[in-house]
This record gives sequence, C-alpha cells and structure tokens, in this order.
Amino acid sequence: MKRHINVPNNFLKATSNFKWSLFLLQEFHICASFKLNFRSKMSIIKNLFTNISDPKQTTTRKVTVVGIGAVGMATAFSLLCQGITNDVCLIDVMEDRLRGEAMDLLHGSLFLKNPKISASKDFTESAGSKVIIITAGVRQQEGESRLDLVQRNANIMKTTIPNLVAQSPDAVLIVVSNPCDILTYVAWKLSKLPIHRVFGSGTNLDSSRFRFLISQKLGCSTSSVHGWIIGEHGDSSVPVWSGVNVAGVRLKEVSPKLGEDDDPELWKKVHKDVIEAAYQIIKLKGFTNWAIGLSAASLANTVLTNQHNVHAVSVMTKGRHGLDYEVFLSLPAVIGSNGVEKVVMQHLSPSERCALKFSAAMMADIQAGIKL
Amino acid sequence: MKRHINVPNNFLKATSNFKWSLFLLQEFHICASFKLNFRSKMSIIKNLFTNISDPKQTTTRKVTVVGIGAVGMATAFSLLCQGITNDVCLIDVMEDRLRGEAMDLLHGSLFLKNPKISASKDFTESAGSKVIIITAGVRQQEGESRLDLVQRNANIMKTTIPNLVAQSPDAVLIVVSNPCDILTYVAWKLSKLPIHRVFGSGTNLDSSRFRFLISQKLGCSTSSVHGWIIGEHGDSSVPVWSGVNVAGVRLKEVSPKLGEDDDPELWKKVHKDVIEAAYQIIKLKGFTNWAIGLSAASLANTVLTNQHNVHAVSVMTKGRHGLDYEVFLSLPAVIGSNGVEKVVMQHLSPSERCALKFSAAMMADIQAGIKL
Amino acid sequence: MKRHINVPNNFLKATSNFKWSLFLLQEFHICASFKLNFRSKMSIIKNLFTNISDPKQTTTRKVTVVGIGAVGMATAFSLLCQGITNDVCLIDVMEDRLRGEAMDLLHGSLFLKNPKISASKDFTESAGSKVIIITAGVRQQEGESRLDLVQRNANIMKTTIPNLVAQSPDAVLIVVSNPCDILTYVAWKLSKLPIHRVFGSGTNLDSSRFRFLISQKLGCSTSSVHGWIIGEHGDSSVPVWSGVNVAGVRLKEVSPKLGEDDDPELWKKVHKDVIEAAYQIIKLKGFTNWAIGLSAASLANTVLTNQHNVHAVSVMTKGRHGLDYEVFLSLPAVIGSNGVEKVVMQHLSPSERCALKFSAAMMADIQAGIKL
Amino acid sequence: MKRHINVPNNFLKATSNFKWSLFLLQEFHICASFKLNFRSKMSIIKNLFTNISDPKQTTTRKVTVVGIGAVGMATAFSLLCQGITNDVCLIDVMEDRLRGEAMDLLHGSLFLKNPKISASKDFTESAGSKVIIITAGVRQQEGESRLDLVQRNANIMKTTIPNLVAQSPDAVLIVVSNPCDILTYVAWKLSKLPIHRVFGSGTNLDSSRFRFLISQKLGCSTSSVHGWIIGEHGDSSVPVWSGVNVAGVRLKEVSPKLGEDDDPELWKKVHKDVIEAAYQIIKLKGFTNWAIGLSAASLANTVLTNQHNVHAVSVMTKGRHGLDYEVFLSLPAVIGSNGVEKVVMQHLSPSERCALKFSAAMMADIQAGIKL
Repeated sequence: MKRHINVPNNFLKATSNFKWSLFLLQEFHICASFKLNFRSKMSIIKNLFTNISDPKQTTTRKVTVVGIGAVGMATAFSLLCQGITNDVCLIDVMEDRLRGEAMDLLHGSLFLKNPKISASKDFTESAGSKVIIITAGVRQQEGESRLDLVQRNANIMKTTIPNLVAQSPDAVLIVVSNPCDILTYVAWKLSKLPIHRVFGSGTNLDSSRFRFLISQKLGCSTSSVHGWIIGEHGDSSVPVWSGVNVAGVRLKEVSPKLGEDDDPELWKKVHKDVIEAAYQIIKLKGFTNWAIGLSAASLANTVLTNQHNVHAVSVMTKGRHGLDYEVFLSLPAVIGSNGVEKVVMQHLSPSERCALKFSAAMMADIQAGIKL
Repeated sequence: MKRHINVPNNFLKATSNFKWSLFLLQEFHICASFKLNFRSKMSIIKNLFTNISDPKQTTTRKVTVVGIGAVGMATAFSLLCQGITNDVCLIDVMEDRLRGEAMDLLHGSLFLKNPKISASKDFTESAGSKVIIITAGVRQQEGESRLDLVQRNANIMKTTIPNLVAQSPDAVLIVVSNPCDILTYVAWKLSKLPIHRVFGSGTNLDSSRFRFLISQKLGCSTSSVHGWIIGEHGDSSVPVWSGVNVAGVRLKEVSPKLGEDDDPELWKKVHKDVIEAAYQIIKLKGFTNWAIGLSAASLANTVLTNQHNVHAVSVMTKGRHGLDYEVFLSLPAVIGSNGVEKVVMQHLSPSERCALKFSAAMMADIQAGIKL
Repeated sequence: MKRHINVPNNFLKATSNFKWSLFLLQEFHICASFKLNFRSKMSIIKNLFTNISDPKQTTTRKVTVVGIGAVGMATAFSLLCQGITNDVCLIDVMEDRLRGEAMDLLHGSLFLKNPKISASKDFTESAGSKVIIITAGVRQQEGESRLDLVQRNANIMKTTIPNLVAQSPDAVLIVVSNPCDILTYVAWKLSKLPIHRVFGSGTNLDSSRFRFLISQKLGCSTSSVHGWIIGEHGDSSVPVWSGVNVAGVRLKEVSPKLGEDDDPELWKKVHKDVIEAAYQIIKLKGFTNWAIGLSAASLANTVLTNQHNVHAVSVMTKGRHGLDYEVFLSLPAVIGSNGVEKVVMQHLSPSERCALKFSAAMMADIQAGIKL
Repeated sequence: MKRHINVPNNFLKATSNFKWSLFLLQEFHICASFKLNFRSKMSIIKNLFTNISDPKQTTTRKVTVVGIGAVGMATAFSLLCQGITNDVCLIDVMEDRLRGEAMDLLHGSLFLKNPKISASKDFTESAGSKVIIITAGVRQQEGESRLDLVQRNANIMKTTIPNLVAQSPDAVLIVVSNPCDILTYVAWKLSKLPIHRVFGSGTNLDSSRFRFLISQKLGCSTSSVHGWIIGEHGDSSVPVWSGVNVAGVRLKEVSPKLGEDDDPELWKKVHKDVIEAAYQIIKLKGFTNWAIGLSAASLANTVLTNQHNVHAVSVMTKGRHGLDYEVFLSLPAVIGSNGVEKVVMQHLSPSERCALKFSAAMMADIQAGIKL
C-alpha cells in the first residue's frame, strides 16, 4: 500500500499542474487506481457494481524494462504485441518521457488485451518482477576510451542493480546494454545473484542475423537455417561454421571451404555483414531497435514460460572451452525460469577456441580496470 | 520431490509392461524426467551439456483440467493452441485414456511451443495450479431424476474438490460440468473457499451463441454485437434484450418489440435457438465440445492475466436483483486473478426479474435435496 | 450467386423441419446470409445501418478440410485456434455430423475472432480454397488386405479429388489420410496437378515425435532438438541419426554408436517408440487426433504464409537418393505458397538409402495393384 | 521481373559503396533474391537442394505502409508482431532511413516468423497490396496556416496516391496522416476509387483512449467498457455519452448527468483528456506512435480477415445525421475486405448533431481552399 501512495508523490513533485498529475496518477498506477476505485464513493460505481472481492494487484509474468530509449521501448512493445506478458513496468530517470511512453502504450490498451503498464523512476514500482531487462546506458562520447564508457555505465548500474534486485529477489536479469558482455559481468557482480540468474542477450541477435543472411542466399526461411555465433557480442564474435545446417545437412560438408578465407563462394562475408549490421543501421537510421527488442523479448519469453529453449547468451565462461578468465561471453545455453540451466558444449576448431580466448582476454583486461 | 517419485509408481502399478511404463514415465512427468536428466549418468548428456542450475519444476500459469471427456480435452487443447498457458495438468480416473490424451498432446509439442503436459489420477500432480477447470461428470441415465443425477455428480465432487483445493489452495475454480449452476454451488460448498474463488462457466457460452446468431441476422461480426444472457445455463436462461446493442445503439430502441411475443420480426426465436443449440448439436454429432471448450479457456485466460474482463458467469446471487436464495446463477461479472471481483447490476425488467426468481427457486429446491 | 442458392437446397432436402433448416441456412452459409442481410427488408436492419458496399464473399486464406472425423476436426480447430486462417470449409458426406460440427465451431465465434465456417457435402462450397487438406478415409476392416483398403480409399478419392480441384484450381493439396504415401500418389494422379502442388503430411509428425522424445531425454525443449525422420509414414520410416543435433552439435559425434544396435544407451528405442506411438495411442484412447491435426495445420500455415520452411513431407522421390520408382516418400522439403519448392538432399548412409529403397519398392508394389 | 532489376538500380545510384549495395539488394528484395537463388549457380545450393518449382513471389496479405516516421514504423511493427500479416512493404523517399528500417526488421526475422519485408522509394515495390496505410505527411511549421499545411500534404498525396492505386488497384486505402479527415477526402479524390475503398483511421484511436480512461475510473478492462467518439479526429470530436455502457448497462442511465457540464462527478473531463492526449504525449516524448500504430494495425486486420467488425473510422458523411457537406468524419462503420460495408446510424442528441454539423462545416471550408 505504502508504495502506491509514495509513487504518486514523485509525480506530484515533478509537475506544476496539480490536476494533470492526478490524471497521470490514475493512468500510471492502475493498481492504485483499481484500489481507489474499489473503495470509490462515486455514485456511478456504487450503482453499477456490487463488490465481491479486492482485485489482485499482481500478475504472474511481470517484466521490468530498465531504460526507455529506442531499445527499451522496442523491447516493451514486442513483449506486449506478442502477448509474452501483459504486465510491463518501465523504469527510467527521464520522468516526462516515462509518462509519455506509458500513456502512449496505455492508449493502445484495447488493441493489446488490457495490459497493465506501470512507469516510474522509483524502483519500488518494479517489485515482484519475474524478469528484469536492462537496456539503460550511456553512449560513447567523442574521444572517450572504451574503459571510460564502461565505467560510466557501471556507475549507472551501481545505482540501479542492487535496488532492482531488492525489489524482485527472484527475478532473472537479462542485460542488453552495450558493451553487453562486460556489463553482464558488472550486473552479476553488483546483483550478488547466483551465476545462473544473470545473463546477457549477447549473440542471440547476431545468430538471428547470421541465420537470416544465410537463408537469403539459400532461398529458405530463417527459422529453417541453423547456425550459431558465439563469443563477444561485437567485432570479435565467432561464427561456428561447423554447425551451420539445413535439415541436419552441414553446409560445411557440402562445401568444405565454407567460411574460410579461400572460399570461392565468399561465405565469410556473411559473418562480416553480421558484425557490420549494427554499424550500418546506425549510419542509416541513427540507432537499432526492432531486432534487438525482439531478441530481448524472445529471451524473456523463454524464461517466463520455462521452455528450456537453447539461445546463444552471454554466460560466465570460466572453465568452458579451456577459458580461465572470469568473464562473460555468449555460448548456446538452455534457458528456463531459473535462468541458465545448462551450457551446450560445442566442438570448436582450434581457431575458434583461439578467437574465444582472445575475446576473453580482452574482456578480462577491461574488467580489471572497472571500479565496482 | 516425494510426489514425483510417487506418481510414476501409479503408472508402474497400472501397467504390466515395465519397459513401456518407463517410457510413459519420461513422457508424462516432464518435471520428473527433467530432474532425472539433470542427474543423468548418460554419457551423451554429460558430454553435450555443462550443468549450471537445477531447472524449475513450476510455471506461473498452471491450469488443471479435471475430466478428459470431449469437453475437457477441447478445453485443454484451446488453452494450449491459443497460448493461454503452456502448463496443463489433466486429472481423471480413466488411466488408459489419460495416457493416450497426454501422449497425443505431447507429440504436438513442436507445434505448441514446448508445453508441459502432465496427466494423472493422483491429485498431487495438480499441485500449484492457478486455475482448476472442472469438466468431470456423469450423464443422465434413462429414467433417472434430475436430483439423482445431481447427487451422483455431487458425490464425484466430494472425492475431487477437497483434494484439488488441498493441492492448490490459491487456485480459482471454474465449474463447467452440468447442471452448471447447481454443481458450482456444490463445488463452492465442498471447497470451503471464499465466494469469489469459485464460479461456473454458466451463460458465458449462451451469450456467445446469442451474439453470434444476432450477428448473422445483422451482417456484422459476433464481437461487434453486444448482448447478455443471464440466469440459468439451461432452459430457463434470460436474454436481457434491453442491453442488446451495436456501437451503443440499442436494438430495442430501433425496434421496440424486440424479443417480445408479438415482435413481427420474431427476434425471440434467437433466444429459443440459443436454448436449443446444445440439444441440436448433441442430436447431430453426439456431444458439444468446441464452443464450450473455448468458453472455458476464455475464462481461464481472464483469470490468468488478471484482465478484469466482464463475463456472464455463475455466481452467488443472494442479495442481487431481489433474490433471497443462496443459489448460483449467471450475471455479468468482472473477473480477475482473484476470481469474481464485482457483479454488474443490470437494470432488469419486471419479467426478467421474475424469470430469474423462478430459476433461483428451482435451484434452491434441487439444492435442498442434495446430501453433501 | 448460384452456388449459394444451390447449397441451402441440399439442406432443405436433407431435413424435414423447414424452420430449423432455415436457421441452419443462416448459420452455415455466412456468405449467403450476409448477402441476404444486405438486401434485408427487416426494419431493424434498415434503421440500424446505411449500406455502403456489398461485403466480399471471399477471404485470402480459405482452407478446406475434407473429412470431419477426429483428425479433420482437430485440424480445423488447430487452424482456427492458432489464427492460421479464419475461413474454414468442412466437406464430408455425413450431413448431420457436418451440421453439428459447424454449429459447434460457429458458437465459439466470439472466442475465435469471427471466423467464417462453411460446411457442405457439396464441393462447390469449397470453391476458392488456397489449401485443401484431405483427412477422409475408411479404416481397415477385419481380414481386409492392405491393397483392398488402399483401393477403397482410392475409390473415395476418385469421387472427391477431381471435384475439389475443379473448384479450387490453384490450391495446394495436403494428404493426411493413411496410408499417407500411397494416397498422396493416388491424389496426385487423380488431381492432374503439377507435382509440386500435392504432398503428404508424411513424417512431419514422426519428426515432431522424434524431437519430443529426444528432448525429454536431454532435458531441453523440443524445438531446440533437431532431427528428421524420412521415408514411409509408417513402420519402415527412417531416422536420420547423422543429422540429430542440439545447437549444431551432432549427437552422433558425442556418442558414435547413437541409433545403432549395439548402442549401450539404447537410443534406437526412441525410433521404435515413434513407430509405435500411433498404435499405443489408438490402444489407449481409440484414435489419434491432436498431434496429427497440429502437424497438418503447421503445413497449411507454411503454405498460406509462403514461409519457405523446411518440413519432412511426402513428395515424389523418383530420381532422389538413387530411387527409380515413381512413389511418394517423405524427405525434408522447402514449402511455400506454390507447394514444394525444393527437396533437401540429405547425406544418407548406405543402410539409410537401403531402407528408403525398401520402402519405395513396397509402395510401388502396392501402387501397381490400384485401379485408378 | 523488370521491376526487380530496376529497383536495385535506385540503390546503386544512391550509394557509393558498390559491394554494400549488392548486399542490400539481397536483403531488400527477397523476391528478387529468391528468384536469383533459384537459378543460382553456387555449388552449395546445387548440392543442397533439388529444385521442384519456382517459389511464388506474392502473398495474400501484403500491406504497404507509406511513410516511415514514428507512426509508420509503429504500424509496421504492430502488423508484424501481432501476426496480422507477414508481408510488409515500406514506401518513403528517405532512402537511407528506408534501408535502415528494413534491415532492422529483417534482422528480427527469426522472431517474427520469417516475414517478407520490402522497402523502396519506387511505387512498383508496393504492387499487389491488399491494404495501403498512408502515414506520410509534413508537420505544421511555425506561422503556417492550417490550410497551407493541408495544401502541402495534399501535394505529397498528388505524387503518391495515384501511383499507389495504379500498382494495387484492388487495395483498401487507410489514411492515418493528419489532419486525418481532410486528408482522407483528398486521398479519396485523388484515388478515383469508389467511396467504400478509402477511409481514415479517424476516431478509432480516440474511442480506444476514451474506453481506456473510463475503464480506469470504473475498475474493469478497457475491452469491457464500450463507448464511441465520433466526428473529427481532433479538437471538435464528439463523445456519444448515450452509448457508453458496461454489459449493456448505460452509464447515462445510472448517472443521468454523465458528460454534461453540471455533472458533479466530472465525467466530461474524460473527453477533454482524450482530446488533450496527443498534445500531452507530444509534449512529454516528442511524438505519438504506439497507440496510433496499433489502431491502424487493427483496422488493417479487420480488412485483411474480412471480419465485418465495427470501428469508428472517417467516412463520407453526406446524407448521414442531416449533413449536407461532402466531407469525411468518423462514424461507427462495419469494415470488411471491401472496405466500408455499412455505417451504423447512432441516435444522436440535438447537441451531438450540432457538434457534428459544426465540424463538417469547418472541414468543407478548408476543403474548398485545397487545389487538387
């Protein structure tokens, strides 16, 4: 109860128009308003309804999205449109934008099967989430070193992660913010959660891009082409060419040079295109949002429905594939309501192992410089 | 843990083919098999995966369907096909049929997004359900009185309801078995649950049929025609003609004789067709299942997603519309995760109130004869 | 126009109750009733609406299901519940049952997003279908030879296939009736359609069962396990063990004896269980319907949405894998709106090729005896 | 065929990086690439597949979205995420942005069930659409008169509408651009289509907002509250208070002052909040997109599935409610694949008719000044 009285206060403070803020109150805090309505003295409600029981204020699939930039909003909209959840909480510090986004989603309520949308800068609003998706983060400034960028984002996490975990101690944390692998490590450290309850969206999207691009060359659907990109979600990602297959037929067996430098059919370019995809889209439209939002929503879906699907996500790699560092890199993993259940042990070639090791060393190097 | 070891035992006892029952064990008790697999000593699993955490054995939207006749199975299949839940437990006493249905659903796993299906005659398998849908029941025998039929069904409920509630003390109970209104009363009494946690599917289906039949006459979609049938789910149901509308335009205002005996356009026949619908379908195909299954699934969906939708469902009517009897009849009600939240107070005409009163008296009369 | 006047006549003839048949008319022939309503002289319609244009009588995703036994109805219900189409036509000769099933589905209209359901023994009702799914067929009688059974089913096809194709010359035909591979050949011959426009559901279901059973052993989702069963939809089906993989990791590489007779972990039993699945379910519940209905619906979905997904379906095998016979057997194929676009050339082991050849010879033998 | 060779040329011209544009070619023109692949000489394709038939280049539910600003993209994403169509064509003049948005959507292919996305400034790419949604338009400049704004948007329509209709002569046109009612009139005039094939999204969104805001006060779901806002999509919109109801119970009968100036419970404010909603959201986040995108997608869905749903959309009002002007204003209408089938004749109060008349006169006045 207390939190629902507290939250509106934030809004009251933040706005000079008292009437408007009352309107916002009703709109934002559906729980609150339902509670109020239940006790409403409005004659119309007393005459229209007979009360039987207090509505429950909770649902079973609450998802909190932290950060309402283009990625956060595409994630929230994917979750709602695809019916993955009907209870989304948006957390950010930009109060005006927060209100605007929540109102805009709520006005689509009729078309989204009556979801519950809450939005606040107050972490208490996120209480009871089953999944928390972190999309918040600052962008690299001109002349800023990568480590400085990581440190600034780590600083944001210091103020958010412990508060989020305190409100939803049983949630699974999915880190989408970039650089994804390092920030997943940072989030895990700050969360003090067991290792399986924190993972990064990692190369779930890279693998999707990889499969799409191959499917276009082959002339069949993306979902009928299987292939995995592992390692860093970034320039040093590793395509596992040996596993690329259609109906169990390995392309590497059909064309042994597949993915190699001297491949006359230049398949290696597909991986290059995957790496450049984000850069190209940012150049063309300013940012990426749809595909990464869909990728994050697909991970939330697997967690919420305990489906035990295999996704390439950023997990602690120490002890796998001969890696010694305590870093996060993407590997195919079985995901369920408990987070990461198992990691699939792919058979990597020496060069693939070497590439992974290179990424891991780079991550460890950066991590060593972060002040947590 | 104990229950997952116990349950297979039931199957072992029930079958003479030991090997086959092991196969069934794996198939039926996904929880169990996952648990086993996790600890599996099979070399293939040890070499394919590295374990990170124990999979959760629970989901957040478990629905138990009691009774696997045509109605129960159409309900279960609707729930799975429409993505309302991906965790269905089937409870019945017919063990062979139970195995057959569960295997058949599980073999469609690929097309149903990897649901968890469990099936058992042992109530412990239903533990942790959010919604329990009762479709079990015997049919009227030749020469049997209605009261005798009710008593036989009540006897079945005596052996099921308390066990189901013991396993899922927080579940909402939805009674679909016929005669629906009386059996909802019986289930409520036996459950010892608060009044809002037990309701009957009642005239949710009758209202759907009513809207469909009107929509065919008008030439617009069923969902754009609004109309409510209340009271008994049966021959004495009451169509609330005053509320029938398209885009807020009351048909009664367009055609004041609507639904009356001397209506030259014979709309009253629509209600007659609703009442006869089940009889006709039973005559034509032997039973009804699709529409009632969809109706039950829609109610489960509203409860699971806490949507606060208004449905016509069978609720305790004492104190509403001047009714004194402690009986269940359908009225439009706001439904959420807590069950019935509010009842909508429609403005009934004297004849509608009278019809309701008649039904209520009839229910009370039968109820008085039941031994609980 | 003519056909909509004709069709009701069938119903009028088939029923002695004139009033009831008028009711059925409205319910069955939504096109017809909409047409009538549009010209309705009913005062309520004239006062409620202003007409702007004649409603279209066609949709873009019409699917005809031939045969309304348990399999046909599970297929129709899967198509509607999963939103694959909202226009289903049921064709059968059992008029009463046909009416009963159509009414039952239509009464669920509110929960199925206002589908158009038509049902008739008259093939004209199926006109304009994009996909036609054949589930009709008789069952083996005691003492009947397999060839006699095939001949009886072929005789049914003689009276249906040409009429169906005449009404929907652009449709893709999917044969589900058993024995699936031979009846697909028969349907193709009778249809006079190009080879890509007729295929059998074949081992699409067997592959789904295979993946489910493996997934249960491994402890991950069915959709994350990849594996293919090809050849006959029946006892001589061929599991392609070399292609079974999780995240591109071949189980055969993890455990080289996989699927072989001397495999200490007995994976071959999984294939045996797939073959026995239908027999077991029939023994337990009398018939199979859910999984096969979902399988057929998934194939219709791929055709209707032109998705180019790979499915194991029964296609003409002459010229593939060294087969000379003009028979149909399942192979993985890329499916789109045009039917079969490409067949995937799996790398089969000598014993797999041999098994395929055996099936093909058996098919050819039976086919030789059919009188078309 | 020619068009697929032409289109890439546009891209080639627009980019200096030849290799990259080839990549874009493959990605953008899936039809084209499939065609090419089918004839591909790449050894991997020849060895992996046996060709059976040419893939179809068309689907049955193609939707073209014109204008890829925030509204257009939210519309496209809603269409794809909700499975309303899997074939979206984006048309705009901003080539870079166009490529960026199409790539971003295509990279989510795996999560969106393998949609076909095309994007071009060339109208030929939109050929064969079933629905065309117009979201393009310029914004009001400082000091610009409303008429000047309308004229600038009308000028854009002069260059787009005839070309779009030429490519998809059977499509239904839905105008979302603002001012919606006037631009629907302009689009209709320019399209030379029959009156039922062009309508504006109008107050479909206003009605959704209205229902949401009322639902929050009452404590039940948006979809269980019925209410209609008609007239202008803008400041002079008209709430039909007499039709507002829950379960057929008119709120106006429960509280006769509902919506009036002297209503002690101030319900009129709800309408004021609806009118101000867009302004408020624009102030808070810069633009509106989610709810309007969902609204447009819901209209496309009704057209594509021929559902005959009633929506409040902008239609020619001449002759309705005593209006003489040839202007477009929103009224509840039955929508199907043919566009507008019927208009629902609501019973308006004198003040509601007066308000409509006022809007109509204002529209007529502006329209008179437009040069077409």
